[in-house]
Amino acid sequence: MRTLKAPRGVIVCCAVCLLVCASALAGVEKWGTFELTLKGPSDGNPFVDVELSARFSNGDKAVIVRGFYDGGGTYRIRFMPDKPGEWRYVTKSDTAELDGKDGQFECTKPSAGNHGPVHVRDTYHFGYADGTMYYQFGTTCYGWVHQSEKLQQQTLKTLADSPFNKIRMCVFPKWFTYNHVEPVYYPFEKKQDGRWDFSRFNPEFFRHFEKRVGDLMRLGIQADLILFHPYDFGHWGFDRMDSASDDRYLRYVVARLAAYRNVWWSMANEWDLMKTKKPGDWDRFFKIVQAEDPYNHPRSIHNAGKFYDHTKPWVTHASIQSSNLAEAKSFRKKYGKPIIFDECQYEGNVPWPWGDLPAKELLNRFWMGMLVGAYVGHGETYLDPNDVLWWSKGGVLDGQSPARIAFLRKLVEEGPQVGFEPFGDSWIWDSYPAGEKTDDYILIYFGVHRPSSFTFALPAGKKYKAEVIDPWQMSITPLDGTFKGRAKVKPLGGPYLALRLRNVEH
Amino acid sequence: MRTLKAPRGVIVCCAVCLLVCASALAGVEKWGTFELTLKGPSDGNPFVDVELSARFSNGDKAVIVRGFYDGGGTYRIRFMPDKPGEWRYVTKSDTAELDGKDGQFECTKPSAGNHGPVHVRDTYHFGYADGTMYYQFGTTCYGWVHQSEKLQQQTLKTLADSPFNKIRMCVFPKWFTYNHVEPVYYPFEKKQDGRWDFSRFNPEFFRHFEKRVGDLMRLGIQADLILFHPYDFGHWGFDRMDSASDDRYLRYVVARLAAYRNVWWSMANEWDLMKTKKPGDWDRFFKIVQAEDPYNHPRSIHNAGKFYDHTKPWVTHASIQSSNLAEAKSFRKKYGKPIIFDECQYEGNVPWPWGDLPAKELLNRFWMGMLVGAYVGHGETYLDPNDVLWWSKGGVLDGQSPARIAFLRKLVEEGPQVGFEPFGDSWIWDSYPAGEKTDDYILIYFGVHRPSSFTFALPAGKKYKAEVIDPWQMSITPLDGTFKGRAKVKPLGGPYLALRLRNVEH
Repeated sequence: MRTLKAPRGVIVCCAVCLLVCASALAGVEKWGTFELTLKGPSDGNPFVDVELSARFSNGDKAVIVRGFYDGGGTYRIRFMPDKPGEWRYVTKSDTAELDGKDGQFECTKPSAGNHGPVHVRDTYHFGYADGTMYYQFGTTCYGWVHQSEKLQQQTLKTLADSPFNKIRMCVFPKWFTYNHVEPVYYPFEKKQDGRWDFSRFNPEFFRHFEKRVGDLMRLGIQADLILFHPYDFGHWGFDRMDSASDDRYLRYVVARLAAYRNVWWSMANEWDLMKTKKPGDWDRFFKIVQAEDPYNHPRSIHNAGKFYDHTKPWVTHASIQSSNLAEAKSFRKKYGKPIIFDECQYEGNVPWPWGDLPAKELLNRFWMGMLVGAYVGHGETYLDPNDVLWWSKGGVLDGQSPARIAFLRKLVEEGPQVGFEPFGDSWIWDSYPAGEKTDDYILIYFGVHRPSSFTFALPAGKKYKAEVIDPWQMSITPLDGTFKGRAKVKPLGGPYLALRLRNVEH
Repeated sequence: MRTLKAPRGVIVCCAVCLLVCASALAGVEKWGTFELTLKGPSDGNPFVDVELSARFSNGDKAVIVRGFYDGGGTYRIRFMPDKPGEWRYVTKSDTAELDGKDGQFECTKPSAGNHGPVHVRDTYHFGYADGTMYYQFGTTCYGWVHQSEKLQQQTLKTLADSPFNKIRMCVFPKWFTYNHVEPVYYPFEKKQDGRWDFSRFNPEFFRHFEKRVGDLMRLGIQADLILFHPYDFGHWGFDRMDSASDDRYLRYVVARLAAYRNVWWSMANEWDLMKTKKPGDWDRFFKIVQAEDPYNHPRSIHNAGKFYDHTKPWVTHASIQSSNLAEAKSFRKKYGKPIIFDECQYEGNVPWPWGDLPAKELLNRFWMGMLVGAYVGHGETYLDPNDVLWWSKGGVLDGQSPARIAFLRKLVEEGPQVGFEPFGDSWIWDSYPAGEKTDDYILIYFGVHRPSSFTFALPAGKKYKAEVIDPWQMSITPLDGTFKGRAKVKPLGGPYLALRLRNVEH
């Protein structure tokens, strides 16, 4: 409890009103971020001393969101409205000057390119809130926000020209091979003795971090935020905080970032390598994030060798490290959720098996996964004289796979706006990854196989045009004639070719 | 019971003595075949009416073997001696004229190229009885003995020039894609009504079959005899005999062929597709073969989708159909026996996933399996205007993999005369298949990976020369200098390259 609240509360009230008025006047677009700014106490430790939340309501819809302390006596409450019309709010706090503040704002139509947050759709897939299909084409830049501003800008520029619509990125900086640099900002303040004070966040770190999340949002890229990771090794100790600090950190991050529509939550990268956590910790982390995030952003956890039990109810989709894409169908069956092979090894040439694939092989894995209704992630690890590897620091993409992944994405997005489901049910289709979006659209990938011809049963009552697709050459070659019933297609050539069949008889 | 035995017995006795004397005079080489020929009854059904066996002894060693009826009143008992010196024998029969015949022969030294039968060695490997290591490099020609004599001779010529030292082949003919031809010989006689009499074998069929097994023996090729298979589909019905006929057939085949030192027993190809058999049948078949074969030739059973329990005591090694060579190490652990990927899909271009691999991929699979201490099988399925596909009918090899498999075999046979054991125990070695024969000889295969350099711990106290091996180009390029302790090798190039390290400090 603290004294002298009233006078400061009074002074601040006007400022708050002004800000809120401005916001209310302009309106907030649907799935945009409404931000309420309040002035309050800065003495003691506001990060732990002050409880603040607000109730937002619109008709019969009401949402309670947590506020957060942003330093310098400033408190903020962020909210993402998902319903047009007038929203009213009222704050609640154990600190009088922050309590009972009310107001309203108008939620307007989403601007162009704003499709809302992404959620699970049709069991195995994802879609934007406005109904637009979301086909995940992810990449990985674990520590890009912890690099120089110049490098971050270069990364954003590269992303803008890339095929990637999701990026895996760490909140905490990384201390690992090719990553032994100190970040520009740290997430916590330091104590007098030079040790980190896990009870005091560094608002500057988070303001910068969320600025980057906003940049990604404008580029149409989902920010898959990795909340914990083992690549600290005690250098800063962010991997070995006590439980209370872990939980406080999670609540703070969610309070700050949940109102960004492009946020996803990844509890950890390689969770099973974090020997500083107990198995039960992960369940608790999931539950905290689930409880704190009113928007139900996607939640996952990524493995090294051992899989977390992705059937647990708080896991929205399976985030998988595995280079065996042939398991995609069995993972779908096992988990009954969307499957993302977030890490299936990377294009590159580092002296490690996780980052020394030729582009052709990474592309092969994309096709193997995508067509049977799973999703795949990219990463690039080419050695660099300055140790700027895309996979961790960002910068530029030197590889040959992104252009081909762009070709695949275009192909996939052109078809019917639903996810792929495995096509055919015989053992043959375990060797030839094949998917259909609808009976009108079938895509078969032959991978390393190269049958001289191929006979299979097409859905009855339809007539198809066929095209041979070369994923590497990025070519589409129509075959003569049409196909129906028990169809025989030849010659295919290959290996590493695909076949697209589209119904032409409607 | 039958009448008029004595007169015939008397007449025949002289002929037997002459034959045995000839055999005894010339001697039989160790692991060669001694054959005792007797004349006996031909009326009734000698295949079921007559019991015949012989006890062979040499010092404190004694072996009992079953004889068989070879048609035309001729009975034979075959025996493979494994101990030099004088062997004595005496027959036993429920038919007086075949009972109590005795004699002896001299077992001489094995001739050049005769290393004896192959058995399991060092848990996961195979060796000849004379101590020579046997590295399995198998191929598959299911129905080659059922083709024209001209084609069989061509097959034998091809095999003589090939790298293959084992061949999977069916006893029964095959009625399947590219195989819809009637064989030259049938294993059974026909009844008056045109149906097969499963109680009467056709000796001509078996004499021909064992002649081919002998041809393979002279070429140093193990004959992996497939006793049952599903590719009959009731055309002849050899896949759906009653249990008594199945068992009689097994005893007959073993009696005729066990004395060939190059014989292996495969209970079935794709056992799980034989819906005409009950699960318990397979255990019984194994037990019959085990009981009837005094030489303990290798016994296995090959799967389509479902694995037989290879931990059962009568299984000597796991015969596996799987295209996932990455599982080799886990199969070793699971079964604790030699692992042969007898079918990991074939080089070819047929319109089926099991037979449309590029040569490079089949070669890749050979390297992946061999280096971690498993074994791999070849097959070739190129479409042919006359439907002569190597995989089933034999003929010639058109593919590009055999020459590269020969290169690998030479490489493997040049090293220390022991099997490969997986090298290294970290997760890295799951991506880079690596094996060591001894600490002095290490072979690492990078497969699809192409690290720009590679650092790893070499066994202490030794100094190695390193060579980069290109399995496709069949080249061996020495690297400068020597390597020891924590060694860094670069550049490797690749993908699909290997590294050989040999200790040069003794």
